[in-house]
This record gives sequence, structure tokens and C-alpha cells, in this order.
Amino acid sequence: MGSGEKNERTGRVSVLGAGSWGTAVADLIARGGLEVTIWCRDPEGARRMNSSGRNPRYLTEVLLGSNVTVTHHLEEALEGAELIVSAVPAQAVRELLKASSSAAPPSARWLNLAKGIEISTGKLLHQVFEEQLPGVSYSILSGPSHAEEVARGLPTAVVVASSRPEDARLWQEVLNSSRFRVYASSDVVGVELGGAVKNVIAIACGMARAMRMGDNGISALATRGLAEMTRLASRMGADPLTLSGLAGVGDLMATCFSMNSRNLKLGMLVGSGKDLQEARQELGQVAEGAFTAQAIRNHARSWGVEMPICEGVYRVLFEGELPRRLMEELLCREPKMEIYPG
Amino acid sequence: MGSGEKNERTGRVSVLGAGSWGTAVADLIARGGLEVTIWCRDPEGARRMNSSGRNPRYLTEVLLGSNVTVTHHLEEALEGAELIVSAVPAQAVRELLKASSSAAPPSARWLNLAKGIEISTGKLLHQVFEEQLPGVSYSILSGPSHAEEVARGLPTAVVVASSRPEDARLWQEVLNSSRFRVYASSDVVGVELGGAVKNVIAIACGMARAMRMGDNGISALATRGLAEMTRLASRMGADPLTLSGLAGVGDLMATCFSMNSRNLKLGMLVGSGKDLQEARQELGQVAEGAFTAQAIRNHARSWGVEMPICEGVYRVLFEGELPRRLMEELLCREPKMEIYPG
Repeated sequence: MGSGEKNERTGRVSVLGAGSWGTAVADLIARGGLEVTIWCRDPEGARRMNSSGRNPRYLTEVLLGSNVTVTHHLEEALEGAELIVSAVPAQAVRELLKASSSAAPPSARWLNLAKGIEISTGKLLHQVFEEQLPGVSYSILSGPSHAEEVARGLPTAVVVASSRPEDARLWQEVLNSSRFRVYASSDVVGVELGGAVKNVIAIACGMARAMRMGDNGISALATRGLAEMTRLASRMGADPLTLSGLAGVGDLMATCFSMNSRNLKLGMLVGSGKDLQEARQELGQVAEGAFTAQAIRNHARSWGVEMPICEGVYRVLFEGELPRRLMEELLCREPKMEIYPG
Repeated sequence: MGSGEKNERTGRVSVLGAGSWGTAVADLIARGGLEVTIWCRDPEGARRMNSSGRNPRYLTEVLLGSNVTVTHHLEEALEGAELIVSAVPAQAVRELLKASSSAAPPSARWLNLAKGIEISTGKLLHQVFEEQLPGVSYSILSGPSHAEEVARGLPTAVVVASSRPEDARLWQEVLNSSRFRVYASSDVVGVELGGAVKNVIAIACGMARAMRMGDNGISALATRGLAEMTRLASRMGADPLTLSGLAGVGDLMATCFSMNSRNLKLGMLVGSGKDLQEARQELGQVAEGAFTAQAIRNHARSWGVEMPICEGVYRVLFEGELPRRLMEELLCREPKMEIYPG
């Protein structure tokens, strides 16, 4: 499974989406020696990426190899692809799959990079994949992995989960290098929920940071957030230990304590008095956590799981609750015995 | 248990040690209305604290209330004390207890603030207390709590653990306020190990930070550190869930991602090429993690628990291994299935 074996694979890889994470993952795969085709929705962006070898919008320092081509035609990107990486935001996944269903080879194995929940249905992304491409080979990649750092070759460790062990191993083989370590897991629900819920917790931590709550308070908040996500994940069938690993606490730390996180930044903007629309505009990029807050709130209610941070983030983002009031409630309530996951 | 009831307690509290954490906790207790006597080993320091109401060395912005007195006579500090807070570093605890044993009222309840392991014996601090003061009422306070932030009134949540629930509740009552939330626990071993091991992990994270490893790598390292501490704690009889709470992952986050942490700073100095002695000199304050690294390495071996981060920190600090080599080993090894605690 060392990187030396990668070149023996001959299949073509499609990366659908040319955002920062799609670009970084395409670059990773191409460095392993495989041919990569990136689908970039914007024709002008695709043209510029092809001519300059650089993404004009994201990770502009990455020079893509000669084994990377870019197209704005989805069919062209999918033709003959053995391996397909879905690198669009969670809310765009279903549309992408609909548009891909006729052109994607039925035997292709898919890897989803989005961390989120479909807000219109409340479904996890493996469910969206299964509905749009029944019987599909599905894997999810998650863990602490800011695209900017991966692009710079900084050491990163992630998890790929699939209900079929051979699929997780395949992606492990395609992606793994000494700088990008890929662990395999079979807990799709746990990995998906960790990646989704941590974005909501990060929004709360961003609010706390904007209000200068300090590292003690933010750590307490993130710890309670871990308990929330673990409780929900257990209830939904995940292994609670998954949330103690890279896809849970690892990603939570990288998101709640790093200025590279969009969700943290969104929370900081909201915490400093902006409303959701202003914050989104200032951010410029998609912060999944705002969508996820809605979906998680509904899940928490239907599964009967107490999730005061996620509920609170929802109220601040969508019902006008003041961030300061939420923080008072979350950080200054009467203590009981410590609440642990379960 | 509200703060309104605190004034009904009439006993005097002794805080033994006038470092930053001792000062912050003395201030907390005094704000609750109890009479507090701080023992400051240094006569000149004690004199200046009494005359100015401020600690000349630590947390100089804190103005101690009129219900706080400072003495450099240990016997005087202990006389009639119902509640005694041990606020000296882990390696000084046994000496303090020896010196206190005759003057401390036998019925006094002790609260230990040190996070560490006694290096000369490898013992956890509740064992040191039990050896020096057999049958003592012992509680340990831990969790994400930088003294600087507590002193500024920033929201903080901690755990007090005792094998006797009524003792944990007593300290909860004495310490708790809306800004300093105290949770009770009965898992003394888990709380002590979380507080001790996280300092070693923080040294590793500091090295990684000095080498500009990025937030992805530091998060991966801290996540593996959590698995290490959970494995050891479970083996030594703790509840693994304790390590998923404030005294485990909470404190780990506050230590590995905050520039307020001495252990992180020590790791950064070592990671930038200083040896342990130079790093300690530059730091000026005690960083428990360097002692703990030795003790944990021995525990890991005698309990048969794999703890590659703690072992590696030991090798760098005491056997001259290069930090860069350790990081290569920890962050760039071949991946298998993800390692979880257990």
C-alpha cells in the first residue's frame, strides 16, 4: 500500500468541484501518479486552470501537474472515470449526482468530501448518494484537514469510511502518502456526523472567540460539543469511539482552534454583531455549519437527544437570539455532575 | 448550592502556595466570602502581598480582597483551617504535606491543584496524599483553566473529583460561581491522569508548532494523545469517559492550542532547538510535563500500554532525540486502521 504501488493503477480519477478542498485533493491524487480530471463548473475558471495550471480562486500557490486536466463539461469529466471524487458543498451534492447519473460509469467508486447534512431532507450524505445512485460504492473522507495546509504539504491525517472495507482501502491506496495519512473506518454514520456537527460547534466557538471568552471557555464549549455530537451519533447507530478519533475530536480541534476554519470565522462575524446574511457575504465561501445547524436541530428533536449548543446556534442564526445570551446560557449555567456522552 | 449560600460557611480556608494558580483560586474563594490565608514560602513576597494586596510575581492585576491574608509561616496558615488547598507543583507536594502534617487539623479537607505525577516514586498525587496523611479527605481540581483567564473573570468550567461524593460537593459549593463552574466527579484516577498526561502531549504539540507543522498535524497529534491517555487511564482503573470530558479532552484542547500554556511553550522552545535546561530557564516557571514524561513512560511500560507520543517526548527531553525525527515518526508513519482508545 506504499506510494510506490500507486502508479500501477491505470484508471482515471474525476474530481467534481474546483473549490479549495477539491483542488487540494486533486493535487494529492495527481502527485500519486494518476491521471486526474477536474470538473470546474465555471468555463472561464476551467480555461484559466488549464492554461496556467493554477486555480485562479483557491490555493493559487498550487501548480497542478501535467497529469491534471480541467473541464467545465461534466460528461467529459466523468467519461471512463473509475474513481470519482465529489468535491461540492453538501447542499449541492444531490444536484451533482442527478446531473452525473447518466454519464458516470455504474462501476465507479465515489468518494465524498463534503461535511454536512442535506437541509431540505435532513439526510446524511451517504443516504443522498444511495437515493440518487442506488447500490453506489460510497466512501466519505473526513478529519482535521484544512485545504491550505494540505496544499502546502503539511502533515495531515484523515479517515476514509465506507461500509465496504475494500472501498475504504482503495481510497487509502489512492490518497495515502507520508504527508497525508489515511486511516480506514467502517463507521460511515459516525464519520459523517462528526464532520457535520463540528461545524456547528465551531460556529459557537467563533461567537465565544469574538466575545473574547478565552481559551478556558472555548475549550469547555468544544468539550460539551463533543459530548453532544457523540450522543447524537450513538443514537443514530454510530460507534461512539469514532467521535473520539480524527473524524470527531480531531476535526473539532482543527475547526474550533484554527483561524483557517470558515465556520469559526462565520461564528466570529455573528458573535461580533453581524447577522447571518452579512456574515456569509463577508466570508465569501460556503460555511456548511449554518445549514447543518438547522438539520441537526431537527435530528436532535426527532431522536430525543439534548444538544443545547446546536440548538443555540440555530436560534442565533435563524431566530435572532443574541450571541451573548447564548454564551451566558451555555457557559454560566448551574453545574451538576459532569455530562458525558451516552 | 447557589453562590448565595457560601457566606454561611464560617471556616477558614488555607491556600498553600502563591503561584499563579494558587493566587487565582484564593481570589475565587475569597470572592465567595470565606476568609482565606495564603501561604507564600518567600517572606518578602508574603510581606508585599499583605501590604499591596497584589502578588508581586503572578497575576499582578488581581487585587486581593480584605478577607485574604498572606503569611510565610506554614503553621500560621494551617492553624484552624477547615479547608486546605494545596497549590504547589506536583514534585513539591510530598514535602509540603510532610511539613504540614503536624499543624494541619486532622479533620481538614484538602483540595489538590497540581497536575502531575511524583517522579521519584511514579505515584499519582492522591497516593502521595494518602501516604503522607493517611485517611485524608482528598479532592483534585482539574480541567481547562488557565489562571490568567480565571483571574480576569472569564468563564471557566472545571471538575473536582473525590472518592467521597460529599467532599467533591463541598468544594463545588466553595468554588462555584457563574463564571467558574465546578462539576463533581468520583473518578480521581481519570481526572489526575488526564491533567498529567495532557501536559506531555502539549509538549509534543509545542514542538510541532515550533516546526510549523500546521493545525492539521497538531490536531492529529492531540487526537492520538487523547487515545494514549485514555488507554493508560482505562488500564489504571479510570472510567474512559472521564477523558472525553473537561479533565481530559477539555484540558488537552486548552493546553495544546493556547499560548497561555507553559507546557506548550516548553515544547516550542525545545522544538526550536533548545535543550531542556535552556528551555526551562527561558520559561522561568515550572512546566510539569517534563517531569510527567518520565513518570508516564514508566507507567506505560509497567502497564503494557503503547504511548508513542509520551515515549517520544521523553526521548527528546532526556535522550537527545531530535524533535524533527520524532515528528516524522509520529505524523508520517504508515497508516493502519485508525487506533482508538481501549
